[in-house]
Amino acid sequence: MKAMTGKTRARSSARAVLALGEGEQVYLHGMLHALRDLGDVRFLMLRMPDGVIQCVCQGDGLDAREGDAVEIEGAIARDARAPGGAEVRVSALRVLASPAEAMPVPIGKGRMNLSLDTELSLRFVTLRNLRRRAVFKVQEGVVRGFREALVSEGFTEIHSPKIVAQSAEGGANLFRMEYFGRRAYLAQSPQFYKQAMVPVFERVFEVGPVFRAEKHNTPRHLNEYTSLDFEMGFIDGFEDVMEMETLVLQTILRTLSRDCADELALLGAQLPSAQSIPAVRFDEAKRRVCERYGRPIRDPFDLEPEEEQLISRLFAEECGSDFVFVTHYPSKKRPFYAKDDPDDPRYTLSFDLLFRGMEVTTGGERICDYAEQVDKLRRKGMDPEDFAGYLTLHRYGTCPHGGLGLGLERFTARLLGLPNVRDACLFPRDQQRIEP
Amino acid sequence: MKAMTGKTRARSSARAVLALGEGEQVYLHGMLHALRDLGDVRFLMLRMPDGVIQCVCQGDGLDAREGDAVEIEGAIARDARAPGGAEVRVSALRVLASPAEAMPVPIGKGRMNLSLDTELSLRFVTLRNLRRRAVFKVQEGVVRGFREALVSEGFTEIHSPKIVAQSAEGGANLFRMEYFGRRAYLAQSPQFYKQAMVPVFERVFEVGPVFRAEKHNTPRHLNEYTSLDFEMGFIDGFEDVMEMETLVLQTILRTLSRDCADELALLGAQLPSAQSIPAVRFDEAKRRVCERYGRPIRDPFDLEPEEEQLISRLFAEECGSDFVFVTHYPSKKRPFYAKDDPDDPRYTLSFDLLFRGMEVTTGGERICDYAEQVDKLRRKGMDPEDFAGYLTLHRYGTCPHGGLGLGLERFTARLLGLPNVRDACLFPRDQQRIEP
Repeated sequence: MKAMTGKTRARSSARAVLALGEGEQVYLHGMLHALRDLGDVRFLMLRMPDGVIQCVCQGDGLDAREGDAVEIEGAIARDARAPGGAEVRVSALRVLASPAEAMPVPIGKGRMNLSLDTELSLRFVTLRNLRRRAVFKVQEGVVRGFREALVSEGFTEIHSPKIVAQSAEGGANLFRMEYFGRRAYLAQSPQFYKQAMVPVFERVFEVGPVFRAEKHNTPRHLNEYTSLDFEMGFIDGFEDVMEMETLVLQTILRTLSRDCADELALLGAQLPSAQSIPAVRFDEAKRRVCERYGRPIRDPFDLEPEEEQLISRLFAEECGSDFVFVTHYPSKKRPFYAKDDPDDPRYTLSFDLLFRGMEVTTGGERICDYAEQVDKLRRKGMDPEDFAGYLTLHRYGTCPHGGLGLGLERFTARLLGLPNVRDACLFPRDQQRIEP
Repeated sequence: MKAMTGKTRARSSARAVLALGEGEQVYLHGMLHALRDLGDVRFLMLRMPDGVIQCVCQGDGLDAREGDAVEIEGAIARDARAPGGAEVRVSALRVLASPAEAMPVPIGKGRMNLSLDTELSLRFVTLRNLRRRAVFKVQEGVVRGFREALVSEGFTEIHSPKIVAQSAEGGANLFRMEYFGRRAYLAQSPQFYKQAMVPVFERVFEVGPVFRAEKHNTPRHLNEYTSLDFEMGFIDGFEDVMEMETLVLQTILRTLSRDCADELALLGAQLPSAQSIPAVRFDEAKRRVCERYGRPIRDPFDLEPEEEQLISRLFAEECGSDFVFVTHYPSKKRPFYAKDDPDDPRYTLSFDLLFRGMEVTTGGERICDYAEQVDKLRRKGMDPEDFAGYLTLHRYGTCPHGGLGLGLERFTARLLGLPNVRDACLFPRDQQRIEP
């Protein structure tokens, strides 16, 4: 009988290799990212999780192809001409696994120059490109920063169901499914569940998939995306939620500076500052954009994408800020759980966060009083009976609370200057695409 | 114009209160968990995220009811009779929000003694009970330990799609959905996607929902659960995956000892040891259970739940271990991507982890060679054409790799001695239940 004790294998790291001195022996494994054959000398670019190392083979007998998984033994040679200032002189090479076919796209190149359709259809391959994978290393850093900030602020992570009986955000863009002979839906957000957890843990967050059956085919819409949600109790007002998001953004940006410098440099991305984020009322933002850029107000109750861009531009020009909170959205355009402004109930105590021209967060204070919530449902033409389960929250008591959802792919795309939100999703889902 | 700078509100913490000295002033907020009225003295139990503090009101004018959200001002009185050794003498109390109705179940009691159906139907309320919420604080610790271990071992966290075109684990228990006029499915596991990411990041993990349309109504099945998955490249064999799981379990247990001592004590849970986990072959385990407990082998190719319990019992008795790895499962019972044992292809290089009588993990080495995978699909009577997308992984090359999935709710239930996996899920989904 054997026993496992938690011993793990040595790992290969490009950064570790580059820190070694002349002549040191190394045993590495990795994928052959690219090859150059100069006759009697071959350059093998070995891809490891944190970078690529140039390995040099001289003479015969070292047979390997692009895409092979290999183990390499060799010695470090410091060489200013090598990427990163060092290379490995290979003394032994073993192929562990080989592809059946040659790479269909030039993943070893800095820029692959593929159409989006080819890019996404061959996603299992194209993600091996260094620029592609860097996007998702940065995205991981965003999620890590989000969690770090919230855990240190006393939030508890939860996992809420994605198969649901009710719509939280309105019925138009719900995916329907069959559930043991019954009708069920895919959750558009964890809204009801995170609110339900406020009287339990006071502050909760969730990182998980949400599903929107929207028929928009735009560079900013996905039909499935990852939502970073939090909800917090005992707020004095929705400004507390915006302050918490500001703190979260500061932590994310600090995490990225610390952990993802190489990836950010590779992608040529400039991190924004979130030290101070301006906040402007919805109606004032519309008015100022109209004045400044001469854009007529067509719909006083909604922001068009172009207006979002102009508001962002205005605050970039005036305050040097890549972020701007737009507050007090009209009640008509917000869900039934949004708390109306007691000073002017045509508006809500809610906000969006715009980041470099695009909405990346919607949040606000929620209704916590039972009678107020029932009344608002009725005023919206909805039947409180349909929300009996949700209303047990208010029936049996909660505290003043609010929260938000941050779209991970949109945030990543804006952060890295990617033109399409699909570029910031490993395996995007849109009307045409459910594969790979 | 306002600006947000990331300032957050002071929090209330029961642990912080209990650490204060006699006479210190406190300003707290929380939910009124329970009340006792002794005429001229009222005891208010104030529920905060990390515990409950006894607050004492004397005289009139402090009106509050169970379920209220309140702010309290008062002074610490050290008193050995109070829970935790201190209480708050209330000088001012403000009610921030009130329930519309009295609590329908006695959430303030240690044990509520409800039927499972009542428990789950009133989940928004019953989770406020201290024992209930402690389960999910421990569950959060499990996930945190899982991530900590893997991040420190160089794994990258990913988010894979839940709407998929293909089945990874066989077609019988797939949820079907309509996707813009096409047929799609809910992912039974992130299997294909985590494998696809191995040539990209070498080591990846995911924490996310998986969906199984199983028609089992048992204490061990859920139709939606949270799966802790990882996949790692450049393994020497599937033992590397078991070693990594052992390390993960050690980290989880250390995290729980550090962060969840109060919750574990409240639940009376004893943490197991994962310092050394025995591993036994499937056929040998069956034979030894047959010999030791006189249980005839009915199906040589599968483990029945009672056999899992007896294998666990055997290794608890013989090695004092609450965990046991059962290795080399029969090929017939494993998915098409499982690598066969070259020494005896009737068995696979795979394993389950049994924990206190129940399977909580399935894992193993995967096939990485294209021809071998196509051949195995054919031998299983499946058409490689149906898996063309998945096979691009093997076609364009990967490395020897393996991984596993750990069921979060099952693991939590076994860890805390909960009789039903539903007790370890915030909002469980079964054939009868999609609400709340």
